[in-house]
Amino acid sequence: MTRENHRENVAGRANVEDTPELLKYYDELEGHHTGALWTVANKIEPWEPKSQSQPVLWRYRDLREKVLRSVELVTPEKAGRRVIYFNNPGRSDVAAAVGWIYAGLQVMHPGEKATAHRHSASAIRFIMEGSGAYTVVDGHKMTLGRNDFVLTPNGTWHEHAVSDDGTPCIWQDGLDIPFVNAMEANFFEVHPDLSEPVAFPVDDMTKTWGNAGLTPGGGDWSKGYSPMFKYEWDRTYEALNHFSEASDPSPFDGHLMEYVNPTTNGPVMKTLGASMQRLAPGFATKAHRHTGSYLYQCCKGSGHSIINGQRFDWSERDIFCVPSWAWHEHANASDSEDACLFCLNDLPVIRALGLYREEALGDNNGHQPEG
Amino acid sequence: MTRENHRENVAGRANVEDTPELLKYYDELEGHHTGALWTVANKIEPWEPKSQSQPVLWRYRDLREKVLRSVELVTPEKAGRRVIYFNNPGRSDVAAAVGWIYAGLQVMHPGEKATAHRHSASAIRFIMEGSGAYTVVDGHKMTLGRNDFVLTPNGTWHEHAVSDDGTPCIWQDGLDIPFVNAMEANFFEVHPDLSEPVAFPVDDMTKTWGNAGLTPGGGDWSKGYSPMFKYEWDRTYEALNHFSEASDPSPFDGHLMEYVNPTTNGPVMKTLGASMQRLAPGFATKAHRHTGSYLYQCCKGSGHSIINGQRFDWSERDIFCVPSWAWHEHANASDSEDACLFCLNDLPVIRALGLYREEALGDNNGHQPEG
Amino acid sequence: MTRENHRENVAGRANVEDTPELLKYYDELEGHHTGALWTVANKIEPWEPKSQSQPVLWRYRDLREKVLRSVELVTPEKAGRRVIYFNNPGRSDVAAAVGWIYAGLQVMHPGEKATAHRHSASAIRFIMEGSGAYTVVDGHKMTLGRNDFVLTPNGTWHEHAVSDDGTPCIWQDGLDIPFVNAMEANFFEVHPDLSEPVAFPVDDMTKTWGNAGLTPGGGDWSKGYSPMFKYEWDRTYEALNHFSEASDPSPFDGHLMEYVNPTTNGPVMKTLGASMQRLAPGFATKAHRHTGSYLYQCCKGSGHSIINGQRFDWSERDIFCVPSWAWHEHANASDSEDACLFCLNDLPVIRALGLYREEALGDNNGHQPEG
Amino acid sequence: MTRENHRENVAGRANVEDTPELLKYYDELEGHHTGALWTVANKIEPWEPKSQSQPVLWRYRDLREKVLRSVELVTPEKAGRRVIYFNNPGRSDVAAAVGWIYAGLQVMHPGEKATAHRHSASAIRFIMEGSGAYTVVDGHKMTLGRNDFVLTPNGTWHEHAVSDDGTPCIWQDGLDIPFVNAMEANFFEVHPDLSEPVAFPVDDMTKTWGNAGLTPGGGDWSKGYSPMFKYEWDRTYEALNHFSEASDPSPFDGHLMEYVNPTTNGPVMKTLGASMQRLAPGFATKAHRHTGSYLYQCCKGSGHSIINGQRFDWSERDIFCVPSWAWHEHANASDSEDACLFCLNDLPVIRALGLYREEALGDNNGHQPEG
Repeated sequence: MTRENHRENVAGRANVEDTPELLKYYDELEGHHTGALWTVANKIEPWEPKSQSQPVLWRYRDLREKVLRSVELVTPEKAGRRVIYFNNPGRSDVAAAVGWIYAGLQVMHPGEKATAHRHSASAIRFIMEGSGAYTVVDGHKMTLGRNDFVLTPNGTWHEHAVSDDGTPCIWQDGLDIPFVNAMEANFFEVHPDLSEPVAFPVDDMTKTWGNAGLTPGGGDWSKGYSPMFKYEWDRTYEALNHFSEASDPSPFDGHLMEYVNPTTNGPVMKTLGASMQRLAPGFATKAHRHTGSYLYQCCKGSGHSIINGQRFDWSERDIFCVPSWAWHEHANASDSEDACLFCLNDLPVIRALGLYREEALGDNNGHQPEG
Repeated sequence: MTRENHRENVAGRANVEDTPELLKYYDELEGHHTGALWTVANKIEPWEPKSQSQPVLWRYRDLREKVLRSVELVTPEKAGRRVIYFNNPGRSDVAAAVGWIYAGLQVMHPGEKATAHRHSASAIRFIMEGSGAYTVVDGHKMTLGRNDFVLTPNGTWHEHAVSDDGTPCIWQDGLDIPFVNAMEANFFEVHPDLSEPVAFPVDDMTKTWGNAGLTPGGGDWSKGYSPMFKYEWDRTYEALNHFSEASDPSPFDGHLMEYVNPTTNGPVMKTLGASMQRLAPGFATKAHRHTGSYLYQCCKGSGHSIINGQRFDWSERDIFCVPSWAWHEHANASDSEDACLFCLNDLPVIRALGLYREEALGDNNGHQPEG
Repeated sequence: MTRENHRENVAGRANVEDTPELLKYYDELEGHHTGALWTVANKIEPWEPKSQSQPVLWRYRDLREKVLRSVELVTPEKAGRRVIYFNNPGRSDVAAAVGWIYAGLQVMHPGEKATAHRHSASAIRFIMEGSGAYTVVDGHKMTLGRNDFVLTPNGTWHEHAVSDDGTPCIWQDGLDIPFVNAMEANFFEVHPDLSEPVAFPVDDMTKTWGNAGLTPGGGDWSKGYSPMFKYEWDRTYEALNHFSEASDPSPFDGHLMEYVNPTTNGPVMKTLGASMQRLAPGFATKAHRHTGSYLYQCCKGSGHSIINGQRFDWSERDIFCVPSWAWHEHANASDSEDACLFCLNDLPVIRALGLYREEALGDNNGHQPEG
Repeated sequence: MTRENHRENVAGRANVEDTPELLKYYDELEGHHTGALWTVANKIEPWEPKSQSQPVLWRYRDLREKVLRSVELVTPEKAGRRVIYFNNPGRSDVAAAVGWIYAGLQVMHPGEKATAHRHSASAIRFIMEGSGAYTVVDGHKMTLGRNDFVLTPNGTWHEHAVSDDGTPCIWQDGLDIPFVNAMEANFFEVHPDLSEPVAFPVDDMTKTWGNAGLTPGGGDWSKGYSPMFKYEWDRTYEALNHFSEASDPSPFDGHLMEYVNPTTNGPVMKTLGASMQRLAPGFATKAHRHTGSYLYQCCKGSGHSIINGQRFDWSERDIFCVPSWAWHEHANASDSEDACLFCLNDLPVIRALGLYREEALGDNNGHQPEG
């Protein structure tokens, strides 16, 4: 067996040659569940991050048919949930789409209902097609439409369904399952009744907390997540347009707004964040890179992104990821229509722990050469 | 001269009889800028607060004509601002409407403009009638309509005006001038140019920050007041209706929402708070009392309030005050229309300093006997 | 009767001449509990604060004898508390030592005990002389020695006493009574048993929370005041010396440390702050001024302060005040001993409400000409 | 190749039998970088956490000689740092002692000095033996003694050394390297001068910020870590004794105090926490379990711990780990001496992200049967 030894000939870095005496010493250390740091130091202290995730684009026109076929193949009772998940080639050991983020496409037919359960993992849903979907979270029932963004926070009971008079519905699920597993803190419970009762007026949370600059009198909220579980598309798109009228676009993001907990202006949940950004007709961003893992869905228009020099063309409902510290830039393909990108990410973790770092591409007027 | 001596025959309270020896002692103390606590202890440590402010209602039909007449009597140049202020009989020494809150009615004609200035006092405006009013605060221009609520926070340059094509405008001003004076912390400056330039797109703050559940990417705001200076009536009334659909009314307030800083969900400014409440058709609240000073304006409908046993009937644009620790209850006069009350208050101070206390009226099913 | 009219001939300030027509108009306004702002605007919006408080020094050698004499003149039962309070000539209407701060000297003999009570006002004590004093606050008993600083926060039951084997004790009381009265939020209760039981080990709070950089496991504290009610002099003086070794003195304060709530690093209570500062041998500060009201006690050494041009010499136990926005500078009289000043103030209010402003004296090398 | 399929015959859990049709479907999904959730759902959503880390005890009497031998085998220049690291059998892929925590024993001889560098990972040191060690962090030099606890936060330049007149020094290093690598956010830089200058008085941070209940006037600190980089043993042990006098021990921890940032009372750094606990003579805790990873060092006395039913006896300088959700209880071996355990952990991450969960052992009077 050859031992690891990651030497670098740079002052301040480990550079110890293997000798028979040292190799013997390493064997002794191993017997005590220990090792010599200098053999692995350069590996575990890299000069900069190199993500295990690969940039991938999942094309909806390929996946839609596969997702719909699952309806014929498995029942919700047997499958728990009918979901096709994104399996990043670099992260299949933890079933992640990118970094520590799990995501998939779920389908449900009218009249179907999933078993109510809860877990330490936090979840979001982003509605892609169909009508009649609803979700019940801790007794709050929410009706769901296209491009609505919905939370099922850490520890809340939840149950998804499509009403009898609806149509087949597809949405994107996103969870921090891989992360919570990595932290060895995931718990799972099936609801004792397999279903949960509706305990409040429909859509009460959005009606109560979704009013800019106004908060309910006497309203207290101190949980670690937003009291508003549904963010409706109409209001979101209107917000993006208002914001676009009032300010210049960011060179790296166009007009980007983060979904927030209205009681803190911070992330919607402690471990998952989300944003919606608008690229004006003809707009192309410059390249930058930053820490954190990002999963995009095009929810309006079309365009392309260049990620670490590789070009990915996307249109509505396509999903793609940007790994940590990967260069990336986006461009709207249309000169007349805007393009909107929904983004799910782990920025709340990265920021809360002081690990965010960002860098703009200086060369070539801020654009990557395409590979 | 008779010395003060506030005796009470209660265990734990001061109860010292004046004697010639003591009176001589008191004289000696006075010579050293001191006094004997027991002579004033019961006065300065009351069992409960007794406000110096009186409940007052200012009827708009009485005041409107007076306010308009000021246009003929004084120019903005000479007057600084053409304002008729509310002078509470118990607080005329500090020119307050109630407690430490100053308020008045300001009028401006098309084409008029007030000199730009700033001060340590914080201000709000609530638009009552007319079209074409606008305000510029730290370079942000805002167009103003009926029932819009506007901030000019502590230390910001501001300038009010009515455009040439507008109509005579009247609004309510509200400031913490008496409080900031009492704290001996008020500074005043006239803008060196007497006017201030517009530096941003019109209404940019409300467009940028006034989007429920969405915050501008990269947007930082750490000032002690809201980044949104204008709260528009349409959105406010819509919010009240949504909130009313989603929850039961408070027995003391109906459906009350507080205007908040969207980045903190806390008060719009550190020293002044505001709320808007809706009394459903036929709704009457029960009585309670709490610390803090409150100035109401009826901005929709009509009704009455009973304050410390005294009845005040109000209709649109009437203004009335509720002093600290005064019993109060409100009733909508109509069985078909809702009634809305705007309220300016010093709750942010009361809460920040841990001085809020509240009590419900238990007797008589929660209603005061009218005096 | 002559009406007020505070004219200034400066652009942007009110400058309206009285005319018979206007005087008649003012009379009409008065009938509606209103007034014309321009008649009082310049008064209520001053260019800068002008404190009602006067700089005063209370000399201990004058007051000590007076305080001790109160023991012969009144019993604690009759007097409630035997206190000689500081009555600032500009603030005698509210019985304040400076600004909105009440203070006095209290005396108690061995075996005496004050009735347990509580109030919305917050209190501090600073021990000046004697042994055997103790205080019980919400069941926590604290033994008190020279220069110890003690809290009895807003709403806590408290009872002061001197043990049978002690000596006559004198301490400085400090409260925000005038402020809480001004806010019309003061409540007072006598303990139903007139006394309160000791419920914890003696000095438990200081032992539990008074450990730099270490917090009790599982310890929760979310009240609006410090969980540590006693700050001992030995540790305080040691801290000042450590701090002096580790950093240069402030030109305006020497080495000043603020007493803080160890769970927030913020003020010990929401309405009252305190600091202890050390002037090294021979050290004299430069002059500055800032908002807020300040009451000093010299608790070690001697020196002088110049306040708005007036010189006040102080030695141990003397007390003096600095009103809001008054120029002030301090000097140690000794070239061999340090001097320490304890300071009670309303900075927590001033800061929490965004009203702090500061200015250094630029002229004359930062020193005031003495008047 | 056999596909994964983690079936459970429980309502609400995935339970889909492989069929030829499904297996073909799975192959198709794989071609699109996707998979069927129901094949892995039960694996990635476990009922409760099952840690990959094993409980391990590293005996100092075994390791000390090994550590000292590294002095003969490698130079600091070649090795970077002479460290023997703890390699948990379940975590050798990421070189972790437990969970995502790296730790090791470092040795340095008098006159030696490590190259100055910085990284995104946060580090602590805990001094075990020797005299003359010091560290320079961002220009702050700290002298180090036995059982002192020292921080080198995320992004700070640091340099460790032993003075010429010292003795060989050994200390425990602890870092979040595995975690920061997992988050793909680790950056490393060697100081351009290979060394960093001392810019402040020795031990200035501890002298300035290490004073219970007193904060430096004008002192601002808003970084994400403690402004006090050294926590001295004498003060720590004194604190534990005071705390023990003032309160009952926790049944699970004895008297445990957390090292905190004195400006927030929160963890010393955002990703690593630490505590020191005292088991009184004869004291044994009951068993509980909670999320988070923990690395203990016995720094006084002796005793044993039972971890998931396995007994580990420890004496001074032994190190052992408790994985996430492992049952554990501790006992002091002595009836006359107390025992102290230093603990390094990732609780700040677990708590900040809302992932803390705790459970007491109910059976058997709270004690585990030993395996």
